[in-house]
Formats: sequence, C-alpha cells, structure tokens
Amino acid sequence: MIFASDNWAGAHPSIAAGLSANAGGFSTAYGDGGLDQAVYQRFNEIFEREVAVFFVATGTAANSLSLTAYNKPGGLSFCHRESHIVEDECGAPEYFSGGSRLSAVDGALGKIDPNNLEKAVGRFAPEIVHWGRPMAVSITQSTEVGTLYSLDEIARISAIAKHNKLPLHMDGARFANALVALETTPAEMTWKRGVDILSFGGTKNGCWCAEAIVLFDLDRAKELAFLRKRAAQLFSKSRFIAAQFDAYFRDDLWLDTARHANAMAARLAAALEDSPSARLAWLPQANEVFAVMKKAEAERLQAAGAAFYDWHKPHGFDGHIGEDEALYRFVTSFATTDEDVAKFEALTGA
Amino acid sequence: MIFASDNWAGAHPSIAAGLSANAGGFSTAYGDGGLDQAVYQRFNEIFEREVAVFFVATGTAANSLSLTAYNKPGGLSFCHRESHIVEDECGAPEYFSGGSRLSAVDGALGKIDPNNLEKAVGRFAPEIVHWGRPMAVSITQSTEVGTLYSLDEIARISAIAKHNKLPLHMDGARFANALVALETTPAEMTWKRGVDILSFGGTKNGCWCAEAIVLFDLDRAKELAFLRKRAAQLFSKSRFIAAQFDAYFRDDLWLDTARHANAMAARLAAALEDSPSARLAWLPQANEVFAVMKKAEAERLQAAGAAFYDWHKPHGFDGHIGEDEALYRFVTSFATTDEDVAKFEALTGA
Amino acid sequence: MIFASDNWAGAHPSIAAGLSANAGGFSTAYGDGGLDQAVYQRFNEIFEREVAVFFVATGTAANSLSLTAYNKPGGLSFCHRESHIVEDECGAPEYFSGGSRLSAVDGALGKIDPNNLEKAVGRFAPEIVHWGRPMAVSITQSTEVGTLYSLDEIARISAIAKHNKLPLHMDGARFANALVALETTPAEMTWKRGVDILSFGGTKNGCWCAEAIVLFDLDRAKELAFLRKRAAQLFSKSRFIAAQFDAYFRDDLWLDTARHANAMAARLAAALEDSPSARLAWLPQANEVFAVMKKAEAERLQAAGAAFYDWHKPHGFDGHIGEDEALYRFVTSFATTDEDVAKFEALTGA
Amino acid sequence: MIFASDNWAGAHPSIAAGLSANAGGFSTAYGDGGLDQAVYQRFNEIFEREVAVFFVATGTAANSLSLTAYNKPGGLSFCHRESHIVEDECGAPEYFSGGSRLSAVDGALGKIDPNNLEKAVGRFAPEIVHWGRPMAVSITQSTEVGTLYSLDEIARISAIAKHNKLPLHMDGARFANALVALETTPAEMTWKRGVDILSFGGTKNGCWCAEAIVLFDLDRAKELAFLRKRAAQLFSKSRFIAAQFDAYFRDDLWLDTARHANAMAARLAAALEDSPSARLAWLPQANEVFAVMKKAEAERLQAAGAAFYDWHKPHGFDGHIGEDEALYRFVTSFATTDEDVAKFEALTGA
Repeated sequence: MIFASDNWAGAHPSIAAGLSANAGGFSTAYGDGGLDQAVYQRFNEIFEREVAVFFVATGTAANSLSLTAYNKPGGLSFCHRESHIVEDECGAPEYFSGGSRLSAVDGALGKIDPNNLEKAVGRFAPEIVHWGRPMAVSITQSTEVGTLYSLDEIARISAIAKHNKLPLHMDGARFANALVALETTPAEMTWKRGVDILSFGGTKNGCWCAEAIVLFDLDRAKELAFLRKRAAQLFSKSRFIAAQFDAYFRDDLWLDTARHANAMAARLAAALEDSPSARLAWLPQANEVFAVMKKAEAERLQAAGAAFYDWHKPHGFDGHIGEDEALYRFVTSFATTDEDVAKFEALTGA
Repeated sequence: MIFASDNWAGAHPSIAAGLSANAGGFSTAYGDGGLDQAVYQRFNEIFEREVAVFFVATGTAANSLSLTAYNKPGGLSFCHRESHIVEDECGAPEYFSGGSRLSAVDGALGKIDPNNLEKAVGRFAPEIVHWGRPMAVSITQSTEVGTLYSLDEIARISAIAKHNKLPLHMDGARFANALVALETTPAEMTWKRGVDILSFGGTKNGCWCAEAIVLFDLDRAKELAFLRKRAAQLFSKSRFIAAQFDAYFRDDLWLDTARHANAMAARLAAALEDSPSARLAWLPQANEVFAVMKKAEAERLQAAGAAFYDWHKPHGFDGHIGEDEALYRFVTSFATTDEDVAKFEALTGA
Repeated sequence: MIFASDNWAGAHPSIAAGLSANAGGFSTAYGDGGLDQAVYQRFNEIFEREVAVFFVATGTAANSLSLTAYNKPGGLSFCHRESHIVEDECGAPEYFSGGSRLSAVDGALGKIDPNNLEKAVGRFAPEIVHWGRPMAVSITQSTEVGTLYSLDEIARISAIAKHNKLPLHMDGARFANALVALETTPAEMTWKRGVDILSFGGTKNGCWCAEAIVLFDLDRAKELAFLRKRAAQLFSKSRFIAAQFDAYFRDDLWLDTARHANAMAARLAAALEDSPSARLAWLPQANEVFAVMKKAEAERLQAAGAAFYDWHKPHGFDGHIGEDEALYRFVTSFATTDEDVAKFEALTGA
Repeated sequence: MIFASDNWAGAHPSIAAGLSANAGGFSTAYGDGGLDQAVYQRFNEIFEREVAVFFVATGTAANSLSLTAYNKPGGLSFCHRESHIVEDECGAPEYFSGGSRLSAVDGALGKIDPNNLEKAVGRFAPEIVHWGRPMAVSITQSTEVGTLYSLDEIARISAIAKHNKLPLHMDGARFANALVALETTPAEMTWKRGVDILSFGGTKNGCWCAEAIVLFDLDRAKELAFLRKRAAQLFSKSRFIAAQFDAYFRDDLWLDTARHANAMAARLAAALEDSPSARLAWLPQANEVFAVMKKAEAERLQAAGAAFYDWHKPHGFDGHIGEDEALYRFVTSFATTDEDVAKFEALTGA
C-alpha cells in the first residue's frame, strides 16, 4: 500500500520491454537516431502540429530550461507560491537562468488566482530598471495538490500573459493525469490555450526516466538546443529515452496508466470520505488525494503497511484541522494495484 | 561495422535485463532506495574505501559538477587543451560554476605535459586578485585520443596539484578501458595516486545511461548533494541508474566489456597497420584507434559499410599526412562484434 | 524644495574639497595606496575593532557582494518583503550569487517581524536538498520607510540568525541617519549586536560615490577580495573613494550631515502633521517622512516647487487613505536647507 | 619618476574642478539628470552619430558588460591571448555572462593576427552544440603592450567578424592615446571600421573614475540598461561621472592629455634607446614603453627613484634577453612631468 509518491514506482512492464527491445544495434547518438526521430514525429501527431522536443533528465531540468529559454536580465517568472519550481527544486530555475527570480502568486489550492496574477504583473513598469521585469508565467497541471485548471482557467491565465507579452509555461509533471481527468486533448490543454512551452513528464506515469520539453514557439528551438547541452542535459544514448516514450505512447498506454492512477485515487478518496476518522480536505481531481485524519488513525494505517505523508496546509484551504488531526497526502500511480486499494478500503472500514 | 563512437551502441543485454528485473515494486526515490544503497556499497568495495557516489545524467554533468565542487571566484581549472571539457561540452563546466575558467595545457597525444602544468600553475600569485587563481587540475583517463596516463604519470600530475593545494579530477568516461589496459585496480588508478574526485562513466561501456561522480574527499559530500540537485541532476527513480550499475558490476561484467572493446581495438589497429593504404598514427592503448589513411581508401571502406570519422590532428602528433591522406578515428565498444572486425580485416586486406 | 530622494543631491563641499586636495601626486592603485590604508585604519577606529573594508561602486554592489560572500548552492537569504534588495536592485543579489534566492519575510513598516523570521527559517530541514537551505539574514537600518530597528530588535534578529547558524547582513545605505537617531555607536549597532557584514553607505549622506562593505567576519576577507574583483567592483584609482571617506569622517562630518538630515525630516514631519490637508502616516525616525495627503494638496505643493513622490502602502500600515488622498514620501539629506524647509512650512500653512 | 602605471596618477586639475563645480544643487539620479544628458549628447557629437552611453565603475565592467550584451549559451569571445580581459580581470567577463568563454588568439605584440582569428572562428560549425559557438570578437586599442591596430587592421578584423556574423568589441581603456597617435577621429577608429560596442576609458587619461560603454548597435540599448543595473553598475549620483566627462571633453582636454602622455613616452623611449645599458624591445606607439635592460641598471634607476615594473615576454617578441637582463615596462600619463622625464634622461645618461 504505497501511496507515498508516484515516483516510488519503477517502470511499467511495457516500458521495460521497450528498453530491452531497443537495446541492440547501433544508432546515431545525441538525439539524432531513427527512434528519436520517430518519437519526435509522434509528439507532432499527439499535439496536432509541429513541436520541438527536447529530452531531459528530470522534471526540474525541464522546468528550469523552459524558463531559461525566455531568460532576461532582471527577469521575474510568476508562478504559484506552492509550485514545485518554488518549493522543491533547490533553486534550479534561478540557477539555470543565472539569477532570474520566481515571483510567487497566491491562489487557492495550488492554482494561481488570475486577479492576483494581473496585479503582480501589473506592478512593473517597463522603463524602470530597478524593479526588474516580468519574463514568464508558469502554471502546473495538475497542481501540487491534485487540483486542475479547467481549459477556461488556462485561457484566462494565458490571456493575462499574452496581454503582458509574456510566454506561458506549463509544468506537466502530471500532464497525463490532468489530460484524462479533463477528457480533452493535448492540443486543447496547451497551445490552443496559449501555452508556449511545456514540461512533459513521463516518469511519474510509468517511465523510468522520460521527461521532455515540448516547445510550441519554434523560433526558440535553436537556442534551446544549446541551452540543453550547456546544462549537461543532452543524453548521448538518447535512444533510451526515445524507447520509453515509444512504448509510452503506443496504444495509448500513457492515457491508460493515467486513467488507472486517477481511478485508484478516486477509490482512495471515497474510502477516506467514508471513514469515520477522516474526511477529504478538498475534492481530488487527478491522482493525489488529501485528507484530514486523526493522527492516531494515520499511525494505525501506517502501522498496517500504508505509506503516505503528512502535508503542510496549502494556501486557500481553510478547513478545520483539530488538535489531534493532521493533513495527509496519498498519491496513486500506474503501479497502484486494485489489491492494495482494496486492502486500504478494508483497513479504513469503508 | 560501426566504429563511429562507443555511444552509438545501445545497452548490454545484462544491463537491459537488470532494468527489467528491477522495474517492479516500490522504492524510496531520489537515491535513497535499497538498490541505490547496495550499489553505493559496491562502489566502496570496488574502490577499497568509503566513497561518496552521486549518480548524474551525463558525463558532462559529472565533469562540470566535479569541478564546481571545488569552485572559487576567479578560479581556473587546468586541463589538456583537447580535453572533452574544453572541446565538447558547450561550456558546461564554466556555466555550472558561474564562470570559472578552463585553462588549457599542452601535451602530446591528449596527455597534460607535467612541465607545462607546472609552469601554467606556477604563474599565479595568490595575492593578486586580477589574475584569478588556480582551483583544480583535471585529467582524462583514457584520453580523447585513446592514450593512457601510466600510474606514475598520474602520480606526477597529482604531486604538482598537491604541491599547489589543488584537487585532482579524473574524467573517467572511459575509466574501465583504461583500468583493464593498465591491469591495475580502481583504487590504484585514483585515490592512491591522489585523485580527489572522479567522473565514473558506465554509458560508453555497456549501460544506457549510468554516470556517477565518485568523491574521495568526503568532506565535500554534503555540498555536492545540493550542487547536484540544483543542477537538476538528481533522478527521482534513481533506481534505474542503480539497476544498471548493479548489472554492470555483477560478475565483473564491466571489466569484461572493457577488455572486449580494447581487444577489438587492438585487432582493428593490427588490420590498419597491415593495410598497404593506412598506418597507425600512434599506438592505441584503450578502445580508440587513430590511423592515417588515403582518403580514397577511407571512402572505399565507408562505402563498404564501415562507419568512422576523420579527426583533427592532436597536439604532439607530428607524423606526416600526405595530400591525399587524412587522419581517422575508430572506436570500439562492448557491442563491437568479432564478425564486424573480421569483415573489416577482410576489407582492408589485412 | 527637493525632497524626492537623498541621492538627488551632489556632494558636500568638504567632500568635493577632499577630492581636489588629493588629486595630485601618484599612489599605488587598486586599494593599496597610503590614503586607502589610512581610511581602513579609520574604519577600525570607528568600529572599535579590526574590520576588513572593501570599497565598491554602489549600494547594490555592497548588498549583493555581502550576501554572495555567504553563498551556498540552494541558498536563501531572508529579508523584509519591501527591502531594497528585493524591490530595487533588478535581481542583482540573485545574479551575483548565481541564483541564490531572496526569501521575503513580512513585518510592519519595513522591519522584519522576528516571529515571522523564526517561522520562515524554521521550515527548512538541513538534509532535504529539494527545498534549498537558509544562507543569510539581511536587515536594513534605517529601513526603506524611515523606521529603525532598536538595538534590542537587532539583537533579537541576530539571535535567530545565530541560532540557525546564519550570518547577519545589515544594509546601511542610511547607516549614519540610523546611528545618530539611536544615539549609539557603530560598534553597538553592528558587531556587538551580531552583525557579520555591513553595507556602509556614504553616498546618500554627502559623498559622490562612497560605498563600502565592512566585514567583521575576517576569515572571509580573502575570498571577498576575489569576489569584488570578479564583480568588476575594484576601482583602480581607489584613492578617490578613500578621499571621500577621509573627508566624510573628518571632524565627524558624517554625523553632522546625518543629524542635519534627520532634523530637517523632523521639521517636515511637524509641518505635515500641522497641515489641515495632511497627516503623518507613521512616525519618522530618520530622514524619511511619509504622510497621507489630499491629492489636490500634493499637486498644489508640487506646483509650488516641492519635489516628492507618492508611495505604495507598506505592509503593516493600516491607516485610512481616503479616495481623494494618497501616501507621499519626503526625503531629506545633508543638502536640504533651512530655507527650503521654511518655504515648505509656509506653503503648508504650518 | 612614477612610470609604474597610468592609474597611479590622481585626477587632472580640470577634472577635480569639474567635480567641485557640479557638486551643488539637486539633480535627477541614475543617469537621467541634465548634466548626464548633456554629456550623452557630447558623445554623439564626438562620434558623429547617435550612440548609447552607459557609465560604469571600471574598465573591467565596461568590457564584461559589452561582451555580455552579446551573450549566448555556449558562446565564445575571441580575443588576444594577452588581452586584459584574459589576464587581468579575474574572470569577470566569464562571470558576468554566466560562463561564456574567452577564446585566446595569438598574434605578435598584443594584436590579434587576422589569419589566426579566421582559423579560430572557422573551426566552429553552427549546428554542433557540443562545441559551443562564436559570440564576439574583442580587440584592445591601444594594446596591453603599447602597440596599435592601424585603421586598416581594424577593418580587417572587423571584416572577419562580420563575415561570421559576430559583433566587434573594442577595449578602449587607452582609447585616447591610440586616437591621437593615429591622428584619426573617434568615428573612424570605431563604427566606421565596424566596431559595434566600445569600452571608452577616461580613468587612465586624467579622470578619477570615468568609464563608459559606447554602444553603436542601438537595438541593444534597452537590454544593456537592465544588464548594467543588474550588475550593480548604475550609479545613483551619476552626475559625478558626467562632470568628469564634461571636463574631459571640454576644449579637447582629453586629446591634450593623451598627446602629452604619448610625447612623454616617446622621450622615455629615446632615453632608453640611447642608454648604453638598455634597448627598446619594440617601437612604442602610444603611452607604454618596453625596454630590455640590464637588471643592475634597472635596480640603479629604481634606487634613484624611478618606479617601473618588469614584464613577461609577450607573444611575438623574439628579441634576445641576456642572462643579466630583463624586460621592463614604463607607462606615462597626463601626470607625467617634463621634470621627471628630464630627470630620467639625466639618470640614463641619454
């Protein structure tokens, strides 16, 4: 019953098989091989237009290079106060860009409040060098707390970015989970709503290590190639990433694994909601469930083999947490089994 | 007959099998899982002492972070003029360190000449801020042109570094090829000769993507953990690197693959030496062979299916190259087959 | 009637005379000349201990290098949300340090609230690389809104910093104004209260361009020398800074000019408080006065020749500002004349 | 008899007087005041076209920001091996640009050999990310060893730069000395020969601290404003730089001081050439004289009060230096007096 994080799983059997199937023979290195090219083409199809694809090693690299692709002296990137780039990347976005700043914007449950964004960006005057200047907006889909921007909400954020001539970045570490939850297409959730550059994550959804920057703003592709290499993120045997994505996209495996993770999360949510010792903190929309639970109950569940973490209260959550209670996070993935969820349901008495 | 580079191969079957075998189940992320820990322990054994091991995505990352671990304002790292960090990393070492400088030192056939090193380091006076100051020495073993530092030569470079209070870094992208060629041990070739930090490469020798920084100077381990994370080089599912190294070290696979690559190189060298249209440019010591060949002959071989590149003349090579000739590089790897080499031998008429 | 900023003035006649007096003859460059040495000695006397002094070109340089002297990968410097380093330096502190982060702490009227600081620093766990880690605390004395930390308040902030093993930086762009207002000594206001490094500003208080980093933590002096040079902040004819400080300190000129500025501010404050169309927003403690005033009245004063700016509401100011009112800032300096203040008094009808 | 460096002098009396004359009154800060504007206009006149002028604190800042204005990931700036940016700026150009590289080009006596430049730039192929890519060419006028590029030679370097789509930077720390030696105009020596950005130095030629970036490529002016501020090089009381340049340009003071320095150098050169114990190492063209001299003679002169330094042999100097001899540098400036030179002449017996 591992609900600690979706990166505690290994790789989906099909991904492992894809690696084995492609291990033999020789291929041009550094992203130029046949399988690399085929996978780039697959990205074009999936996004219904030409995109530039850059494999990188980690989600942190994808986010940091995406923002750095729009780097400016004195630049500020606006993002949610509790976003991954702010809280969990050890300052990589600032480091990669040689010191650009992340400007935290508040909003309930992991989502930037557009009014706050408007105000935050609007404070700057282009001619005043002292203040620095806006350089990008970044949103996370799905968010760190398992919520989603609707397509309209993305469009709203995007309109503010465009109005201020700023590019829009999407951190899609859990892109697939959001996609299937919204029942939409990759194109609709990104460039058709004004997203310029996307961190496309495969690792949490069944791969070993498959992260890509998907760039819609093709004019920047040449620069990004140098940025990636300089950041030591250009794999020599890039085929091993291509092979993972090849298997990931084949027969819509990636959508299936995301749907499975979301469904498992929904079952966990129901179990927690039904439990006399817990209640949902807010409605889960993807593959992360947050519940307020009695500490004693959490300890009991953990003692029985369920792995999950307590969590800090996000901005915009004003539910009551009693003295003997805490907030807990449960994450599901492609690897979460029906058996484990059933066991958890039994444990919680749901 | 692919002799283009040792990174054109995929992964050794045992490496692929290792990944498959470890794909299931759950494990702590970010380098703290059971398999990670076991592999760290394996490194301790291999190096006959406690070392700190940091998996990273690329050799460029290993080199750049290794030097950055010893970063100083105004710092200069002394390395061979034709080293990989100078010629093939798009400025990553400078970028990672926020602008430290690589100071090129000459020496024949890819190896730093110790007298030149002494002079280059000796020019600096510690109190003169204008000049900057030495911060590290870096050598490559085996070198970019397939040559080796003997243990004594490493000791000599190391003595100069130590005399100047500088750490010694070794770029071991082809560590195993050097190791088996010298018939020595990892300990003898590194820390026992004064190496402080090592880029330990597995990728060229049979892995998909398995690079590690091996740090002997344990006091720096805590900082390096932050440096790596900030550089977006901390894998979440680090188990996939551990699984590769696990298979790599098992039953000395890594030494076998390196020996195989070196043996194939020796056969290529013999074939080229025996050919009436070619001659060895210098004696190959690991898995890279350089030959002067008639251009027409090279084209004939390439037309017949042999892949290899022409190469620029390295410092210290003063052999004659005729008008109708050029210098060519041939690289072998674990994946080079007897069949392919035999086919090449037949082609060259050796 | 220029109350726009204390950097709108030129130089005090004694400073100008000091430059003229020292223009002739020859002197060792780059901070090693006789006058430089004499001024360093003067700093020792003023601070009642040995200090290391580094002249730099701007307050931004002093602040940015001070924090960079304590730079760490993943480092965060805690400072007030409305501090100069956050709002007015175009990201220089982040840039100088290669991407360290400024972590904004709230507090009323320009001063860090120690409880907030404790919470902000306390969130970090040293072993978790993802989060980054605290590297410094920075306070401004006097603050951006003309308030002061009492000696006890400095000690309280310092205790939190020390408890967390963090250095304490003081931005003293208006150091002298604070010093005379508190009627204390440089030693008491800095190292005796735990300040480790100080941006010592002379420019706003009568110099043309005289800023210095005063380092109490002497072990870092050697590194800071390289940091300064690398940041292009080492003047060749450093004598021109020394000459300014020489005149600045002579016969306590600097204390006199600061007292004058503060006294002028007090008179402005009284005039504004007595005006039927204005009221003090909060009590001025140094040389900056903030008042809520009817916009029509502000325009009338400006039309009559008074230069001053409207200002954004700082955190912790909860006074009422009517529809037809705004917040305005008035800054005085050594160059503010009795005549101008009298004229302003007459205008406001005070 | 101070011939140690042209930065050992203080300021010309007219510069000091200019500062005093402008010390009073109030003026907009940060480069926007009336005197600033007047001086910018003066630069336009001097260069016979519109230019963008950025005052900075040091020559190192001017050089580093000039190259950073053309920064690229993986970028290399080509410059002479013994140029100031390589040898005397503690890595500032690399630091300011976040790790771009200086690529040293050889050439005799301080001047880039155009054939070497062509070869060095020509090695790069734009599509190969591993190698990085050219970003700028930088020349020094007059050079570190007192030689000059003729106008034709500048044009030749410029043509190579333009052919490779690279901007041309000129380090003009001793711009005026070169200008009067070539008897040409600022326009002819810069943008009419293809210079895109210039470090215009006033400090060595009579100012206290007056350095400016003169940008001919006006499209980059907006970015450079942010670059300068972020680098902590924007003075608040910028009037103090403007006042120096105002006096510097008035009645062609700057040309007079440069002519004086050059004339004094010519007299020193003649004295050394006539001395039985010394000979000129090469012909001085501006305000620096290099001579081979018996060490005993040098010691005798120094004991008699002449200050000058021994110097390392530059590339391209193949004159004989005996066992008992060394190479020495003598630098003159606006402050070098006829009396001192006459005294030196008497000492050398010329």
